[in-house]
Amino acid sequence: MFAHNKRLQYTVRVGAPNPGLANLMLEQFGGPQGELAAAMRYFTQAVSEDDPGRKDMVFDIATEELSHLEVIGSIVAVLNKGAKGQLAEAVESEAELYRSLTSGGNDSHTTALLFGGGPALTNSAGVPWSAAYIDTIGEPTADLRSNIAAEVRAKIVYERLINVTDNPGIKDARGFLMTREIAHQKSFEKALHAIQPNFPQGKLPGKPEFTNAYFNMSKGDDMRGPWNQGGDWKFIDDPQPAVDGGDGTAAAGMYEQDVKALRRWRHARHRTRQAIQPPARSLVGNVMGV
Amino acid sequence: MFAHNKRLQYTVRVGAPNPGLANLMLEQFGGPQGELAAAMRYFTQAVSEDDPGRKDMVFDIATEELSHLEVIGSIVAVLNKGAKGQLAEAVESEAELYRSLTSGGNDSHTTALLFGGGPALTNSAGVPWSAAYIDTIGEPTADLRSNIAAEVRAKIVYERLINVTDNPGIKDARGFLMTREIAHQKSFEKALHAIQPNFPQGKLPGKPEFTNAYFNMSKGDDMRGPWNQGGDWKFIDDPQPAVDGGDGTAAAGMYEQDVKALRRWRHARHRTRQAIQPPARSLVGNVMGV
Amino acid sequence: MFAHNKRLQYTVRVGAPNPGLANLMLEQFGGPQGELAAAMRYFTQAVSEDDPGRKDMVFDIATEELSHLEVIGSIVAVLNKGAKGQLAEAVESEAELYRSLTSGGNDSHTTALLFGGGPALTNSAGVPWSAAYIDTIGEPTADLRSNIAAEVRAKIVYERLINVTDNPGIKDARGFLMTREIAHQKSFEKALHAIQPNFPQGKLPGKPEFTNAYFNMSKGDDMRGPWNQGGDWKFIDDPQPAVDGGDGTAAAGMYEQDVKALRRWRHARHRTRQAIQPPARSLVGNVMGV
Amino acid sequence: MFAHNKRLQYTVRVGAPNPGLANLMLEQFGGPQGELAAAMRYFTQAVSEDDPGRKDMVFDIATEELSHLEVIGSIVAVLNKGAKGQLAEAVESEAELYRSLTSGGNDSHTTALLFGGGPALTNSAGVPWSAAYIDTIGEPTADLRSNIAAEVRAKIVYERLINVTDNPGIKDARGFLMTREIAHQKSFEKALHAIQPNFPQGKLPGKPEFTNAYFNMSKGDDMRGPWNQGGDWKFIDDPQPAVDGGDGTAAAGMYEQDVKALRRWRHARHRTRQAIQPPARSLVGNVMGV
Amino acid sequence: MFAHNKRLQYTVRVGAPNPGLANLMLEQFGGPQGELAAAMRYFTQAVSEDDPGRKDMVFDIATEELSHLEVIGSIVAVLNKGAKGQLAEAVESEAELYRSLTSGGNDSHTTALLFGGGPALTNSAGVPWSAAYIDTIGEPTADLRSNIAAEVRAKIVYERLINVTDNPGIKDARGFLMTREIAHQKSFEKALHAIQPNFPQGKLPGKPEFTNAYFNMSKGDDMRGPWNQGGDWKFIDDPQPAVDGGDGTAAAGMYEQDVKALRRWRHARHRTRQAIQPPARSLVGNVMGV
Amino acid sequence: MFAHNKRLQYTVRVGAPNPGLANLMLEQFGGPQGELAAAMRYFTQAVSEDDPGRKDMVFDIATEELSHLEVIGSIVAVLNKGAKGQLAEAVESEAELYRSLTSGGNDSHTTALLFGGGPALTNSAGVPWSAAYIDTIGEPTADLRSNIAAEVRAKIVYERLINVTDNPGIKDARGFLMTREIAHQKSFEKALHAIQPNFPQGKLPGKPEFTNAYFNMSKGDDMRGPWNQGGDWKFIDDPQPAVDGGDGTAAAGMYEQDVKALRRWRHARHRTRQAIQPPARSLVGNVMGV
Repeated sequence: MFAHNKRLQYTVRVGAPNPGLANLMLEQFGGPQGELAAAMRYFTQAVSEDDPGRKDMVFDIATEELSHLEVIGSIVAVLNKGAKGQLAEAVESEAELYRSLTSGGNDSHTTALLFGGGPALTNSAGVPWSAAYIDTIGEPTADLRSNIAAEVRAKIVYERLINVTDNPGIKDARGFLMTREIAHQKSFEKALHAIQPNFPQGKLPGKPEFTNAYFNMSKGDDMRGPWNQGGDWKFIDDPQPAVDGGDGTAAAGMYEQDVKALRRWRHARHRTRQAIQPPARSLVGNVMGV
Repeated sequence: MFAHNKRLQYTVRVGAPNPGLANLMLEQFGGPQGELAAAMRYFTQAVSEDDPGRKDMVFDIATEELSHLEVIGSIVAVLNKGAKGQLAEAVESEAELYRSLTSGGNDSHTTALLFGGGPALTNSAGVPWSAAYIDTIGEPTADLRSNIAAEVRAKIVYERLINVTDNPGIKDARGFLMTREIAHQKSFEKALHAIQPNFPQGKLPGKPEFTNAYFNMSKGDDMRGPWNQGGDWKFIDDPQPAVDGGDGTAAAGMYEQDVKALRRWRHARHRTRQAIQPPARSLVGNVMGV
Repeated sequence: MFAHNKRLQYTVRVGAPNPGLANLMLEQFGGPQGELAAAMRYFTQAVSEDDPGRKDMVFDIATEELSHLEVIGSIVAVLNKGAKGQLAEAVESEAELYRSLTSGGNDSHTTALLFGGGPALTNSAGVPWSAAYIDTIGEPTADLRSNIAAEVRAKIVYERLINVTDNPGIKDARGFLMTREIAHQKSFEKALHAIQPNFPQGKLPGKPEFTNAYFNMSKGDDMRGPWNQGGDWKFIDDPQPAVDGGDGTAAAGMYEQDVKALRRWRHARHRTRQAIQPPARSLVGNVMGV
Repeated sequence: MFAHNKRLQYTVRVGAPNPGLANLMLEQFGGPQGELAAAMRYFTQAVSEDDPGRKDMVFDIATEELSHLEVIGSIVAVLNKGAKGQLAEAVESEAELYRSLTSGGNDSHTTALLFGGGPALTNSAGVPWSAAYIDTIGEPTADLRSNIAAEVRAKIVYERLINVTDNPGIKDARGFLMTREIAHQKSFEKALHAIQPNFPQGKLPGKPEFTNAYFNMSKGDDMRGPWNQGGDWKFIDDPQPAVDGGDGTAAAGMYEQDVKALRRWRHARHRTRQAIQPPARSLVGNVMGV
Repeated sequence: MFAHNKRLQYTVRVGAPNPGLANLMLEQFGGPQGELAAAMRYFTQAVSEDDPGRKDMVFDIATEELSHLEVIGSIVAVLNKGAKGQLAEAVESEAELYRSLTSGGNDSHTTALLFGGGPALTNSAGVPWSAAYIDTIGEPTADLRSNIAAEVRAKIVYERLINVTDNPGIKDARGFLMTREIAHQKSFEKALHAIQPNFPQGKLPGKPEFTNAYFNMSKGDDMRGPWNQGGDWKFIDDPQPAVDGGDGTAAAGMYEQDVKALRRWRHARHRTRQAIQPPARSLVGNVMGV
Repeated sequence: MFAHNKRLQYTVRVGAPNPGLANLMLEQFGGPQGELAAAMRYFTQAVSEDDPGRKDMVFDIATEELSHLEVIGSIVAVLNKGAKGQLAEAVESEAELYRSLTSGGNDSHTTALLFGGGPALTNSAGVPWSAAYIDTIGEPTADLRSNIAAEVRAKIVYERLINVTDNPGIKDARGFLMTREIAHQKSFEKALHAIQPNFPQGKLPGKPEFTNAYFNMSKGDDMRGPWNQGGDWKFIDDPQPAVDGGDGTAAAGMYEQDVKALRRWRHARHRTRQAIQPPARSLVGNVMGV
């Protein structure tokens, strides 16, 4: 069960109303890397998590993200107060209106003002928040990695937002929120490392001959690095279709008509693969491509 | 520039047409963890990446994911062929129709059949693919972590799809595709580790007093683990609002009216924090929360 | 600031796992009338509300809806546990799989299971939650009416869900949740009535000659009722275009070229309207149409 | 069946072309509170309504909203005419282009111009109209309340739009459209009151002990008002989890294993509740929370 | 202005209620090729069209599509009546419920029933209608081609729907609706041919050396046909990057090739702006509004 | 299988960084008429097409559109480089920031910059790309017409984009891309004409008495043209409901209760239609309407 305290997690003092800045702040309210996305990512994991430790952790962090959402939303509301007044009463002239509305130079904040100046669950371009932003799949070694990546993205977006204002109160609040993303990232990394082994994920091992292959699909001056060189990498310089045999088509019916032939084909292919398991890189191209 | 080879990267043989299974396969065609999402995640990074090595890598992998998209799409098309015929001609009776359409027990595949049986860019529930699935933000230490997490999710979803069929041709193709996700994950991890330091990301360091704090926001029988215990963690047992001073409200105008007072307040708060930097955990609760 | 208690607001005991029922429950988790929509509707109002009483109320109710979201999410997770296991391990045969997956007769729950069986932020057809469901506009007399309507819709959907199960534990929990919608509706109605006057809303009065007009736009056997009969209604039996004068076109430029003519035209139109203010219904058609 | 008259319901005269203003007008064309949303809300109710009087009413109003949609769309088209010409021919210089395009200070209108200057079914931030805006659920006491709230929102948004222009022709047309929302609201209120009883909605009565409870979920200086004070309100000052008994968890299996025990537990809980029905407010907290 | 006639454009008699069939019918109500999409495609063209003949035509057809939308919606409502009743009252047992709900074998119709059985603006998989389906761009030679294609798609989807039922009343009504798509297609084709020349569209001619080139981007056994053979086609068998010169990179500052010309051009533009620019910043404020 | 060449299909040289222009370019990257929409339209057709010639063609063109997507994305990235740097470092003052960000006058490009300046899969108003843009239905005579229309729309949008810049490098690249749309359009037209007959599409012929009828649904000064005049058109001047007999209602049950009566009614209606088949236009109105 949730409870609410009327005081914010973090005290906020902003300068003068600034609807353009308020609009930018929406990026962390209803944007893809924002606080609702964070809260819902962890909340959906929390309610279905079986492990009591991880369940506790994701509930803790989900709850804190809801508290951050409240901080951001309050900032947006405060920054819009003046502009809201302008819209609530007739302005002197059309010219005056456009000057006041467009001092920040944009129109999704105008849209926001039409809706009263409170924080809408949109990003800074006015796009409504969507649960398509949430990537929870109910597998801890996957979800924790998704969480780590999400915290890193949120940290960077906060950093960019901090760089676009010199309002000290806003910078201060965003500095707190940004810092908490770092702390959350650390928790998720610790929790991931506490699951051993965590690579490869799941139970199915995959086809070993393709686990370490790097397909050089993009031709030109190739750059090499630890992502395709050294270790157990097999660098396939000129990848070919039908990499594992056959004719590179998709077809139905053959299996139904002749399931034994299919099995013989698959068995033969398997034996061929076994036979030509690459002893050296110079053969890899042929093996993978034929 | 892209080029296409008429042969698939992987040969596919399916059994009898099976529109229900085809519909499930759409999850990896137009679903959030599917091949288009993967291809577009890496492609959007590739066109704006400045580092030539990483640019090459993400283009290589984006190109392979497009090739996987083609494999999955071809499987869906082949599995639907028969059902497409059923719809193209009048069936004998309504009862017969529903029996044939619902042998897989669902209706988003019926929707798919109404559109001709080809692979639609939807997930297995019929929801159109959305660029909201893409989390590229143009910062390598963030994007590479997003990529790692995405590959892990894709691996798990393939594993689940493999578990829901005993069609050997489908299992074989999905096994290949699943394996490649593992290889891509490895490349992204190597590329991330090649950037040093990669934690914390970005340039702004954050507020040190909150970097290592764990807020225990969820009350009950608390579970402890490496995500909030040991190392340099400060465990805040009873988090309070207004964690960094002030009254826990959001307000505007004060700064404009009295910028000096604001500075004095911030300065005093800073000194207070310096003065009470927690020497031991027993004091942390007071400092952070009260 | 939010805090979380590890115990649910309402104890839940379900019978056997039932993924089809879990899928239906998603309607109140990530559907348009569900608990996240409720929580976010009130939360967005709360952060920007100036009146301390209403602010307190919408925070109270938003917080309770979050607690309800947790109850619903926990039910979904529990109902899916068994099915999740089925997917996590290979099943004996494809026939067996489809039998088990489709015992509830649908496929968006299959999609849900592919994502691990936890509650996804979708409705029961698999459509992701969208902030387009939220109709907050930052005007209390509007928002409170929106809230009342939303609670009524939620109550009805809970009633329908209760009617589709005979699982006593599920009926019991849903009965509690449904009841709370009634209580919330009452609070919002009391709060709306506490604002006087609350009709018409806003400051602009509208054109009096059209405030009480009912345009009978749909021809055939007309039905009359209190919505167009009695009181001060003017029933316009045969509505005509260009209801307020002019030629029924839209055009630009005339105003710029001849603003005085425009004013004379408007003035003349106004006098005409005054002159022919309908003394009896038989004239109304002419008045409104010419 | 619908028929169309080539004359608008309301004559429109605008001043000079003004694409920025046209863009704002889109809010009532393809926005959430706009005329298409209104028309489709009532139309979807009309086709399934069984009561002939209400069916007639919602068809009447749906038809008028379509006529309003035409008025708004025509205004947008007229306001964009000049700008459309600018885009159709090469402009003199880049500087000139941006000056002309951004005279209203925004870019979603630039997007609109790229699409030819006709009214797109988007809101003023360029977001496509979505049927997610429609909240029809096929229950008259719910739908009529939704309609009332929708008309109030539309009235307020029109008022805000009127306040942002001093173009007399635009103000005049919007004044008419705004006024009609008031008239529609009145019709829906009359129709709702004609259904007795209309509270609580539906057939299921809810759990009486929770119908009048107000949970004070948000801690701090509590504000009291008619929404939680007086009448039959039970004010629960310190709401606890597991409000109706049990341990506050969600679990499956118990019912299957021991349905009799469940019934005894429920029966005992019921008796306990009966026994401790709160005689005075001072006891309520204990009753509701334990 | 629109008017409504209480009688449908086409009389409908259906057999027994059939919610599964009702659900399929939603494809033409709120689906991408459905009647709302058709009506809105033509309506958005109509309000901004300058040519009086085409304007008349698209209003005629838009109005007829609205009338079709009403026919389809009425069919859905009638087919759901029985099922709506089942949900409105408690059913005997959960087993009975699922049997009745899933007789059509799917769950998006269950979702629809939860919302009262009226026609929702979704497709047959439950996805809400989106204005993203509308491809109007305000250029007659483009829009008319879009309309032709849309009518063809709608005709085919109706044909598929006719093939999936043997209910004579439904087939009869859909036969009428399907036929009208053919008639509309003919009108649009005639209107397109009435514009001469209509190819290529617009004013800019394109680069002649690429107008007739066919790039053979897909390697394997090439198939030739009138789309790349004969006439003035240039068949480029092995397309290369950087097709028009240069090194195939994207770079800023180009002006590598002719940086002097750029500077002259920029300089001239700058001088022109200076010449007509306010001479001092103190005046800029006045000029620009600051 | 796809392969990638590190060189672009077309060399691009842009002038100075210009984030406002970059933002406009997004229209053809992630907008409805953009290159991803084109690539995915043809790709989804390609994987399910049975005819080898058309399959080859749509793969060729899909591959080229992916290459165009890369060109556009690279232009966006290059145009944003400078602005990305501005965001990556703290700017001097808030005023300076807004001046630099809003030099193009809009805010969806600000949103884009917050995400690092790389090309996001959105349109120029920031709306994420959606598969709802794709209208493939798996029927060649429909899909080819959809393709023709799509190419025409893309050509026009490119033309408009060319008209809004005087940057010679951008104009040059867009000129190439625009030209290719013309060439693709020609290929699709040739392929459509190679299918004979291609009108009407599909197998069901439709009701002959409605194939050539034009319903004049919009009253006022009617305009006539080849779309409703001449040839075999029957111009229905005053269309009536229940066009084909009956009472213009939708009802269920009658057929079940009295299938013979239904057949007699349908038979009688058919005979009546035969009897009054219009010999001359003057009778058509009566026939169709009564």
